[in-house]
Amino acid sequence: MRKAVVLLSGGLDSATTLAIAKTEGFDPYALSFRYGQRHAVELNAAREVGAQIGAVEHKIADIDLRSFGGSALTADIPVPTTPSEGIPVTYVPARNTIFLSFALAWCEVLGAADIFIGVNAVDYSGYPDCRPEFIRAFEALADLATKAGVEDGAKFTVHAPLIAMSKAAIIRRGLALGVDYGLTRSCYAPDAEGSACGICDSCRIRLAGFAEVGTPDPARYRK
Amino acid sequence: MRKAVVLLSGGLDSATTLAIAKTEGFDPYALSFRYGQRHAVELNAAREVGAQIGAVEHKIADIDLRSFGGSALTADIPVPTTPSEGIPVTYVPARNTIFLSFALAWCEVLGAADIFIGVNAVDYSGYPDCRPEFIRAFEALADLATKAGVEDGAKFTVHAPLIAMSKAAIIRRGLALGVDYGLTRSCYAPDAEGSACGICDSCRIRLAGFAEVGTPDPARYRK
Repeated sequence: MRKAVVLLSGGLDSATTLAIAKTEGFDPYALSFRYGQRHAVELNAAREVGAQIGAVEHKIADIDLRSFGGSALTADIPVPTTPSEGIPVTYVPARNTIFLSFALAWCEVLGAADIFIGVNAVDYSGYPDCRPEFIRAFEALADLATKAGVEDGAKFTVHAPLIAMSKAAIIRRGLALGVDYGLTRSCYAPDAEGSACGICDSCRIRLAGFAEVGTPDPARYRK
Repeated sequence: MRKAVVLLSGGLDSATTLAIAKTEGFDPYALSFRYGQRHAVELNAAREVGAQIGAVEHKIADIDLRSFGGSALTADIPVPTTPSEGIPVTYVPARNTIFLSFALAWCEVLGAADIFIGVNAVDYSGYPDCRPEFIRAFEALADLATKAGVEDGAKFTVHAPLIAMSKAAIIRRGLALGVDYGLTRSCYAPDAEGSACGICDSCRIRLAGFAEVGTPDPARYRK
């Protein structure tokens, strides 16, 4: 079994990605971040999802993104309730670059050369660090950045199995792999009990996906 | 004045880099990390160096690298006192990739497109993430990773002004720019009072540099 580091947010996409990594024969090491996001509820979801799908180990790294701010998820900027032009304010500056960098560090310690990330460039919010050209650039960087790449000629692969899938296709794949979507959390603005708002970008995209599949979303929404 | 984010460790190289950024006409925003390193003494040095040279602002971001380990600087692995073959155990997996990612995040919030890093590929420890090809790969990534790069066509530059200089040349440049090297700390294994060991890789390279310049090193060494 080859080891892989899987970025796990507790959302629908990363849960599906973890299940895919496992079904492709990897021993998945799940990695989440406590990054000053408003919704620590995400991390509880990540723990439950990691346990349900069967991560070998699950690390939650503390990183400080609130000290930079610049996003509705890391500063006191309201989460929009209607779609916006261009890249929305929920974009967190350099977030996936930071997350992949930590995944790379853990890979080196584990002796792994595979990273899984649940980015999607179809039913998504237009974030720059969710696109295939970004993923390819990070792979090129990883080979040059690491002891494993330079001394042992390791070739890092950033697997983004969802990148070209519709939200409905992702949900179908996850259901086939036994993912319990009732455990996952996608909302940008959940309430204190973890109930989703149903109207932010992330909720809208998720609900449209379940509607297309023709299955009710088992997540809890505010009445 | 253009803003630039300058990575500042409190060591000799990053102090010189900060002075160079300033003399090149940038408004420098200094960024340091509390990353579980054994020597918090570095951060005190970084604060003093930032103030002496005149950083506009100085942020210290908390990041958790000890939870991954894998280095003499982030795990219970002894710091070597003699040179080793290949990349030494003081290499911290993916450290500069992580540091540059955070610098990129702060750039986006500041509206800056310039990052300064004091890496050096001449008198150095052979770390992969100190080489020119790594720096170029990160620049390519940054343009693709960011809202500024994608929406506004920003071109990020990672300035590594020391990369091809000998340690002696770096020291001469810094002295000419008024850097107080008595404030800087380079040792991998300082004692509780912050006195340098004089025998680790970093101390050896530093002392040889000052010897070549023909100036005493103003840092404090253990008797």
